[in-house]
Amino acid sequence: MELVSIEEIRDAASRIKGAAVRTPLLKQSWASLWLKPESLQEIGAFKVRGAYNAIAALPEDQRARGVVAFSSGNHAQAVAYAAKRFGVPAVIIVPDVAPRAKVEATQALGAEVIEVPIGDQQSAALAVAEERKLAFIPPYDHRDVIAGQGTVGLEIAEDLPDADVVLVPVSGGGLASGVGTAIKALRPEAKVFGVEPELAADAAESLRAGKRIEWPVELRARTIADGLRAEPSDLTFAHLQSVLDGIITVTEDEIRAAVRTLAHRSRLITEPSGATATAAFLFHRDEFPEGKTVSVVSGGNLDPATLAEILVPSRLTR
Amino acid sequence: MELVSIEEIRDAASRIKGAAVRTPLLKQSWASLWLKPESLQEIGAFKVRGAYNAIAALPEDQRARGVVAFSSGNHAQAVAYAAKRFGVPAVIIVPDVAPRAKVEATQALGAEVIEVPIGDQQSAALAVAEERKLAFIPPYDHRDVIAGQGTVGLEIAEDLPDADVVLVPVSGGGLASGVGTAIKALRPEAKVFGVEPELAADAAESLRAGKRIEWPVELRARTIADGLRAEPSDLTFAHLQSVLDGIITVTEDEIRAAVRTLAHRSRLITEPSGATATAAFLFHRDEFPEGKTVSVVSGGNLDPATLAEILVPSRLTR
Repeated sequence: MELVSIEEIRDAASRIKGAAVRTPLLKQSWASLWLKPESLQEIGAFKVRGAYNAIAALPEDQRARGVVAFSSGNHAQAVAYAAKRFGVPAVIIVPDVAPRAKVEATQALGAEVIEVPIGDQQSAALAVAEERKLAFIPPYDHRDVIAGQGTVGLEIAEDLPDADVVLVPVSGGGLASGVGTAIKALRPEAKVFGVEPELAADAAESLRAGKRIEWPVELRARTIADGLRAEPSDLTFAHLQSVLDGIITVTEDEIRAAVRTLAHRSRLITEPSGATATAAFLFHRDEFPEGKTVSVVSGGNLDPATLAEILVPSRLTR
Repeated sequence: MELVSIEEIRDAASRIKGAAVRTPLLKQSWASLWLKPESLQEIGAFKVRGAYNAIAALPEDQRARGVVAFSSGNHAQAVAYAAKRFGVPAVIIVPDVAPRAKVEATQALGAEVIEVPIGDQQSAALAVAEERKLAFIPPYDHRDVIAGQGTVGLEIAEDLPDADVVLVPVSGGGLASGVGTAIKALRPEAKVFGVEPELAADAAESLRAGKRIEWPVELRARTIADGLRAEPSDLTFAHLQSVLDGIITVTEDEIRAAVRTLAHRSRLITEPSGATATAAFLFHRDEFPEGKTVSVVSGGNLDPATLAEILVPSRLTR
């Protein structure tokens, strides 16, 4: 299988310029830690990089007809946002259990939202793509999406060329594949570790086994890190096998504590998925080498009630 | 009185490169609003720009002897941080009522902290400067400090050259003086408005009167925006008269609501002072022209308990 190259990531960087925020790398005063705050993207997550790159790379006539995607999370808003910037139609398939706030945020970006019974999203998206001749933009199982997410790694290598360790969350694996590819090309001395919740540690088990091990969706759905419930595809798994030096798993309590630390010490609001790599930094220091460590803060979209429960846990017990 | 020039601000930009974060300008999806998040500086506030520029501009032999400042807030950490980067001694005079957390944060940056009775800080700082031959770095009443804060405006003009309105908090006036000077030089069509809490609206009253009107410190101390309790000097007031198109005053409730909006919609933790300009955007839209509006988010240092009380106000009443 041909893996994504650093040249494809460089091409992605040229395409997304101006559409995605060139996020700063934030040195922390309290540790040898630098944060890459993708929560600052206009849609609140790194997903805009891959979605925009994939849409930008389409042939112009195909792009003009529009795009379709399925997601109830950050990829929905990323595709809607990117399509809006190109002035082309976007259809987003969401499960009928999706929170109203997320549906409305996607509609506010101009996308047509179609609700389908949970479990039918992918087949519905492919059917809409066929019927309306729209380009299907998958959340991670696509070279252009991986290359787009890889621009996070490109920027890390530019801003901290002597980084020793990069920690990156793993779900479908698009972000970790892209970041790992960029770091290994530009700073081969650095170690790259994926981070997963214990409750959705399918990639960790798969890497140990040397082949993809599927976890039932009911198991993966247990974690509070709702952005980390997907599982790698053949394409992303091949990247993870090639570029990761290991996977660290973190507990739910560690994830919550990392959300608090990022708020109180780093002044960033992060969603649980976005705080997962920082949880590994805070609680698993014996599992990666010492040195200049980068944590990718992948996103910051969570509802105020969840944020309040994490930041002020005593509120519920008083 | 000779005002700070755009050339002095450009010189400051060269000096602070690498020491201060080149913060991104964050377009908000929910309004014609761009945020300049100075809360992302390593010390959590814009103050690092002015302090570093002032220390960098000292003659080398004078800088080598060290610096002294007085502050119980963000200027203390800014001077300590800048001195540490230059490897020179820093003495910070704080009132003996300063919160332990702030004293410890300043000490952690390598500064010597001297506690004095409240009210004696300035005289103590000047005495230490004289006795130990240290350079005194004032919080705002200094051309190099104003020029350093002005780099915020320079970056805004670079990133959004067609900005229509810039909203910036006013306390001692160093930030507003610098930002206003840069904006008026580079984008004269843009309107620049200072923002003050109603409870510390001395600069608004002074501008209306055409001369500095002092408010007793007990009055200014009432606002939750503890970074906005200082008052302009002759030097900064002359700048404010020259570069501001007006001052907007905001209530305490509006400031608290802006802290919440910045957390929930913009994913930024801000201190009340840092949210004040955004409060003007949210609640006083009839007081400035329509168009592309920039709000300077000046800082994000607040203790977790205050943050919890603002984000989860119901906690106290349950």
